[in-house]
Amino acid sequence: MDRRSFLKNSALGGTAAATAALAAPAIAQGNRTLTLVTSVPDGFAIFDDAAEYLKNAVNTMSGGSLTIDKKPAGSLVGAFEVFDAVSSGQADMYHSAEYYFGGQHPGYYFFTAVPFGGTAQELINWYQHAGGQELHDELGQIFGMKTFLAGNTGAQPGGWFRKEIESAADLQGLKFRMPGLGGRALGNTGASVQNVPGGEIYQALASGAIDGAEWIGPLADERLGLQEVCEFYYTGGFHEPGSALSAAINLDVWESLSPAHQSIIENAAMATHHWSLAQSLEGNGAALQRLQASGTKVMSFPDDVWDAFRVGSQQAMDEFAGDELYDRIRASFETSRDSSAAWIAASDGVFTAQRDG
Amino acid sequence: MDRRSFLKNSALGGTAAATAALAAPAIAQGNRTLTLVTSVPDGFAIFDDAAEYLKNAVNTMSGGSLTIDKKPAGSLVGAFEVFDAVSSGQADMYHSAEYYFGGQHPGYYFFTAVPFGGTAQELINWYQHAGGQELHDELGQIFGMKTFLAGNTGAQPGGWFRKEIESAADLQGLKFRMPGLGGRALGNTGASVQNVPGGEIYQALASGAIDGAEWIGPLADERLGLQEVCEFYYTGGFHEPGSALSAAINLDVWESLSPAHQSIIENAAMATHHWSLAQSLEGNGAALQRLQASGTKVMSFPDDVWDAFRVGSQQAMDEFAGDELYDRIRASFETSRDSSAAWIAASDGVFTAQRDG
Repeated sequence: MDRRSFLKNSALGGTAAATAALAAPAIAQGNRTLTLVTSVPDGFAIFDDAAEYLKNAVNTMSGGSLTIDKKPAGSLVGAFEVFDAVSSGQADMYHSAEYYFGGQHPGYYFFTAVPFGGTAQELINWYQHAGGQELHDELGQIFGMKTFLAGNTGAQPGGWFRKEIESAADLQGLKFRMPGLGGRALGNTGASVQNVPGGEIYQALASGAIDGAEWIGPLADERLGLQEVCEFYYTGGFHEPGSALSAAINLDVWESLSPAHQSIIENAAMATHHWSLAQSLEGNGAALQRLQASGTKVMSFPDDVWDAFRVGSQQAMDEFAGDELYDRIRASFETSRDSSAAWIAASDGVFTAQRDG
Repeated sequence: MDRRSFLKNSALGGTAAATAALAAPAIAQGNRTLTLVTSVPDGFAIFDDAAEYLKNAVNTMSGGSLTIDKKPAGSLVGAFEVFDAVSSGQADMYHSAEYYFGGQHPGYYFFTAVPFGGTAQELINWYQHAGGQELHDELGQIFGMKTFLAGNTGAQPGGWFRKEIESAADLQGLKFRMPGLGGRALGNTGASVQNVPGGEIYQALASGAIDGAEWIGPLADERLGLQEVCEFYYTGGFHEPGSALSAAINLDVWESLSPAHQSIIENAAMATHHWSLAQSLEGNGAALQRLQASGTKVMSFPDDVWDAFRVGSQQAMDEFAGDELYDRIRASFETSRDSSAAWIAASDGVFTAQRDG
């Protein structure tokens, strides 16, 4: 997924909507309303489902004393203006994917996903128990925000291809749609990386304008109909191995909340992450079964293609080296990731290989 | 882990403590206190950590209007009397591992772990999005309780062995400590399954009374010192591939709570599961590194040993077939598990094999 696709889908991009005035948080008789702006339209699968879960959890748990008023992309500010809106206090909260804000600080990439990074569970382990939340706080304080993880798509697949990829040589000049740091890494392998909004992927593939594309996962990809225009689905991907969503709140607003309301937001975000990751994985499992039954060929890239991805990803990650906070976040993340990955491989990995193999 | 080990460790087993009178829930000026009984001593790693997280989340989020008063095993009722205590209304809530209550109904095994069952994430997928919670509710209603998952140890390892297991023939007559349905399955392979309380495992291994034992995972196992008396650690296990903890509340008490308090308990349980699983996995990763550095040999069972586990587990699971609810829970669980496992293998599995291989 990328920024332009959101803008295109919601037809609400740009800065026009940014000028809409936002009411200050209402404080009356102890009740309080927080305006939450998102980067997607209402009802947008996985992403808005998570924001909706978060909103409902906070509103119900607080018994009406704290109300989140969710505003979809473009209704108050544009999809990618949510960061500045919350940082400046124009809105109280956002729910978004923070790799859209890598331009504000490259440390934000780690709080969504980085190429050859961590799975959803590895990210959670680091975040909850090995310093991730604290580094997120440090990053947020630069911009006057308190931030939480609040959703996850799980591992995003390598994507759809009209022709089989038989070796890394097949990547040379391949016109492939992939956004973000993953796209930058793919470009390093010799592919011709294209920016194609989500709503145009189907047509771009059908017309031959592009040779392949990644989107989100079986459930969302199936809804776009990509199985009708591509035969080969590479389910393992290197670029977003567990993409988190985040909720952020203006730091002044956060500090003005009672301990009860702060705890409600924090625990609602954790419950949202728990619920959202399961939604993605359960939905993708069922969708993959349908795709296979209707003829999609489920593929894995050859080893030398993975080697090319690995080299390209290392280059993309190293581009930001030298920024003190980026380097510190990366080192903390990678140390935890390597440690918990080793345990998960030795326990879950061994078990599932035997059960399913 | 097993029932006797808890009793032994807490030195509070039996029914003596069960006669202690429990105060009825205090309702004064809108504030309410719920007594929560657990199956472990205060401070017990992973298990009580989860109960403590749950308690603190509820108490903080409710701003004092709902207070959980946590009582460790034996202080009001014995470790394994918590189920009957909540069912009868003697206590308001329990936090425990529900496979201890397989004698009340074998359906409860699925809400902790079953041999060759699901990983923690597969269990969560089913529970949140494919009917698991609804079946848990149906089971709970038989006994007058509303139940939630609220913690997870992750996959428990195959365990510690004094001698290498070179083939399934080495299981014949092997004196091995393993509780629950997994132990029953192991017995089906020809092993001599032993019940040894947690606090006696070290001595039983050191004296040669047993040839091997499983406990919980690297972090907890290391604290018992099992690496001092066994050289071989089989990290992949078949018996508890993702053991959940649960919180239950008496149904009359549940129905008397406001929607806000109900939502606080439900979301606190989800946040607890999220936090607890990450605690186990992060802690196990670091402990495995220490164990390997100090000479423990990390092993995987040969394929024919896994085949024996598979046959023994199928037998153990089939023993309960014919109970209508057990069969329905099993079918629902296995359908979801197979579907989400296929997706996780094709996405996370392919990615991590390439990243770490």
